[in-house]
Amino acid sequence: MVEEAIKVLERLKKEVPLVHAITNYVVINDNANALLSIGASPAMVMSPDEAYDFTAISNALYVNIGTINNETKETIINSVISAKDHKKPVVLDPVGCAAIKSRVDFINTLLKIGDISIIKGNGGEIKSLAGENAKVKGVDSLDDSGNIDSCLKLARSKNTVVVSTGKEDYISDGRRVVKVNNGTYLFTKITGAGCTLGAIMAATSACSDDKVISSLAALLVMNISGELAEKECNTPGSFRTKFIDYLYILDSDMIRKYADIEVLEA
Amino acid sequence: MVEEAIKVLERLKKEVPLVHAITNYVVINDNANALLSIGASPAMVMSPDEAYDFTAISNALYVNIGTINNETKETIINSVISAKDHKKPVVLDPVGCAAIKSRVDFINTLLKIGDISIIKGNGGEIKSLAGENAKVKGVDSLDDSGNIDSCLKLARSKNTVVVSTGKEDYISDGRRVVKVNNGTYLFTKITGAGCTLGAIMAATSACSDDKVISSLAALLVMNISGELAEKECNTPGSFRTKFIDYLYILDSDMIRKYADIEVLEA
Amino acid sequence: MVEEAIKVLERLKKEVPLVHAITNYVVINDNANALLSIGASPAMVMSPDEAYDFTAISNALYVNIGTINNETKETIINSVISAKDHKKPVVLDPVGCAAIKSRVDFINTLLKIGDISIIKGNGGEIKSLAGENAKVKGVDSLDDSGNIDSCLKLARSKNTVVVSTGKEDYISDGRRVVKVNNGTYLFTKITGAGCTLGAIMAATSACSDDKVISSLAALLVMNISGELAEKECNTPGSFRTKFIDYLYILDSDMIRKYADIEVLEA
Repeated sequence: MVEEAIKVLERLKKEVPLVHAITNYVVINDNANALLSIGASPAMVMSPDEAYDFTAISNALYVNIGTINNETKETIINSVISAKDHKKPVVLDPVGCAAIKSRVDFINTLLKIGDISIIKGNGGEIKSLAGENAKVKGVDSLDDSGNIDSCLKLARSKNTVVVSTGKEDYISDGRRVVKVNNGTYLFTKITGAGCTLGAIMAATSACSDDKVISSLAALLVMNISGELAEKECNTPGSFRTKFIDYLYILDSDMIRKYADIEVLEA
Repeated sequence: MVEEAIKVLERLKKEVPLVHAITNYVVINDNANALLSIGASPAMVMSPDEAYDFTAISNALYVNIGTINNETKETIINSVISAKDHKKPVVLDPVGCAAIKSRVDFINTLLKIGDISIIKGNGGEIKSLAGENAKVKGVDSLDDSGNIDSCLKLARSKNTVVVSTGKEDYISDGRRVVKVNNGTYLFTKITGAGCTLGAIMAATSACSDDKVISSLAALLVMNISGELAEKECNTPGSFRTKFIDYLYILDSDMIRKYADIEVLEA
Repeated sequence: MVEEAIKVLERLKKEVPLVHAITNYVVINDNANALLSIGASPAMVMSPDEAYDFTAISNALYVNIGTINNETKETIINSVISAKDHKKPVVLDPVGCAAIKSRVDFINTLLKIGDISIIKGNGGEIKSLAGENAKVKGVDSLDDSGNIDSCLKLARSKNTVVVSTGKEDYISDGRRVVKVNNGTYLFTKITGAGCTLGAIMAATSACSDDKVISSLAALLVMNISGELAEKECNTPGSFRTKFIDYLYILDSDMIRKYADIEVLEA
C-alpha cells in the first residue's frame, strides 16, 4: 500500500495539481507554502462570486471551516456545488465542530449538497460528526480513545473516506482501515498542522481515484517530514521551518524507509 | 513581584487556558503560534454568529482591532458582551487608534458595553485614548516621553489595568506602576510583536485575579524571550523563529535570572 | 541607473515611508515583514470606512487583489480614489486576473477611476491585461515568452509603468525598457514572492518621481536578497527566513556588486 501511495506522490510532482483551498486565516500562508513544497499549485479564491468558476478549473477543492463567516460560508457552498458539477475531489476539514455545534449543521449541509470525497478531522471532530460525545478544548481533541471506531462509523454512515488524526492516524472508507504510526508530538506545538495535512490531502486526492490511497500518501509525506524535522530540532519555531524544508526534500526512498503503517481488516 | 508572575506562568502551563483571540489578519498566525509556545490553547473564531457562545466556553478573550471591518466589529461586540456575562477577562488592543480617530470611538463603545480587564497599546495608542496628543506614523508610536503618565491617567479614568509599551513598558492599575526594562529593539523589526504580547497577556489574565501581576507575567515571558533570541541572531527573519523557540523554552529559572523590573509608587 | 536606484533605497531608509497595503490574506504577514525589513512602515487597513482617510495620510498605496471579496473591493476603490485625490503613488497587483476574467474588469475600473502609478504582475497577468492570450495555472504563469512585448504594450495603452515578472523581469514606461536578470528559482517555491515585490515596489514608489527607477530599486533589493539567500540554503522553509534577513541586511555596496540589469531602447 506504501508503494501505491508513493505512486500518487510521484504523479503529483509530475501533474502539479491546482488546489483551490478555502481555508482559515490562521493557516492560509502555511497551507500555501506546504502545497508548493510538495509540488502542488495552491490558489486561495475567497469571493462567493468567483468561487464556482474557479473550482471548475481546479484539480481539487480543500474546504476548512476554521474561521468561517457568512461570506466564506457562501464561498464554500458555491465551491462545493461546483466541485460536484465538475467532478472534482473535495476534502472537508470540520475544524472546531466539536466545540461549536452549529458547525455540525453546516457540515451536514455540505454533505447533502455536495459530493465530499474525504472528511478529515481530529479525533474529537470525527466523533462529534459521528454523533458521539467528544472531549475537546476549543479546536483541540483531548482524548484519542475510540478514534478508530468513530472513523469507521462516520465513513459508513456518510459513505465517504474519513481520516481521524491523533497520536495515531486512521483512514477508512467504511471497509478498509489503515493506521499510520508516523508523526511527531511537535505537530501539536505549531498552529494548523491538521489544516496543512488537509490541504496536502486535497492535492493528493487529485492524483488517485482511490481516496484511501491518496489520503495515505498525504499522511506519509506530512508525518515523515515532521519526524525528520523533529530529529533536527525540538522547538516549535525552528521545527516549523524544517518541516516545510522536508516537505520539499522528501523523496520516494525516504518514504519507503520510514513509512510505518498497518492495514487492518474492517 | 517576579515570583508572583512566575506562579502565573506555572499555573498557565498546568491549566492550558483556552484563549479566544479575535485578532488582525497580519499577525493571526504568529499569535496562534505564540500562544501554543507558552502553553495556552488558541482559537480564532471570527463569525458574529459564533462569537458569543465561543467566548462563553473560553478562559479569556483577546480583542485586537488592527484590521477590523463591519463584520469583525460585530464579532468583537458579541464577544465582549459574552465575556462580561460570563466573567471572562478581556484584553483590548487598540491598534492604530492614534492614526484613525474613529477607532477611539469604537474602543470607547467597548469600554462602555464590556468589562475590559486590560488595555494594552503602544505609547501613542495609550496617549490617544487618554485624550493626549500622540506622535505616530501609521500603527507605530514615534515618541516614548510621557508614556508613564498617560498609562497611569488612562488606568484611573477607565478603572482598568493599562499597559503602555515602548522602549520601556509600563503596567498600571491607577495605583501601582510597574516598569519593565527587558526587551529588544528587534521587536520593532518584525510585524505584530505588540499584538503577540496582547495575545499572551490574554492567556496569563486567565491565570490570576491580579491583572497587574498577570500582565507582568506576559511582559516577562515576551521580553526575556526576545532578549535571548536577540543574543543568537540580529536579523528579523531568523530572530522571529528563535523568538518563538524561546517562548517555548523559557522556564522559571530563566525568568528569575533575567527579569529587570522596577515597582514604582503611584 | 543602478546608482539612481540605490539613491531611492537610501532615501527610503531615511524617510521610512508609510505604506498602506491592501493585500491578500495569504501573504499579508510576509508583506508586512518585508516592508519592515527594507525600512518602510507597513499598515494594513481593510475597512471600507477607514480606507479613504488612511490612504490620505500614507506615503504610498499597494493594492493586491489576490483574495478580494465584496467588502475589500469597496476598500480598494475608496483607497484608489483617495490616492488620486491626495496624489499618492499606487502599485496595482492584478493577482489571478489571467485565470479569473472578472478581475480584468475590476482592474480596468481601477485604472479608470484612479491614477495608477505602476502595474506589476507575472507574465500571464500582464499579457491578460494587455489583451493577449496567457498560458497560466491558477495564479502562476506558465510561459515567459513575449513578456517584454506585453509589458511595453500595456505600459503604452494604459500610460503607466508596467513591471512584468518571470525568469527575467521587465520594467517599462512605454519608452524605456529595463531588464533585470537577478533573482532565484526559489521565489516560485514560496508563496507570495510576487506580492512581496509589489509591496516593496509601493514603498520605493514613495521615494522617487521616476517610477521606472523606483521599480528598479524594488526589483534589485528583492532579487539580490533572494540570490544571496539561495546561496545559503536551497529549501523553501529556510530560504524564506534567510530572504527576510537579507532584505534587512542588504546595503548599497552589495547592490552595486550584484546588480545585473540591461537598459534596452524601446
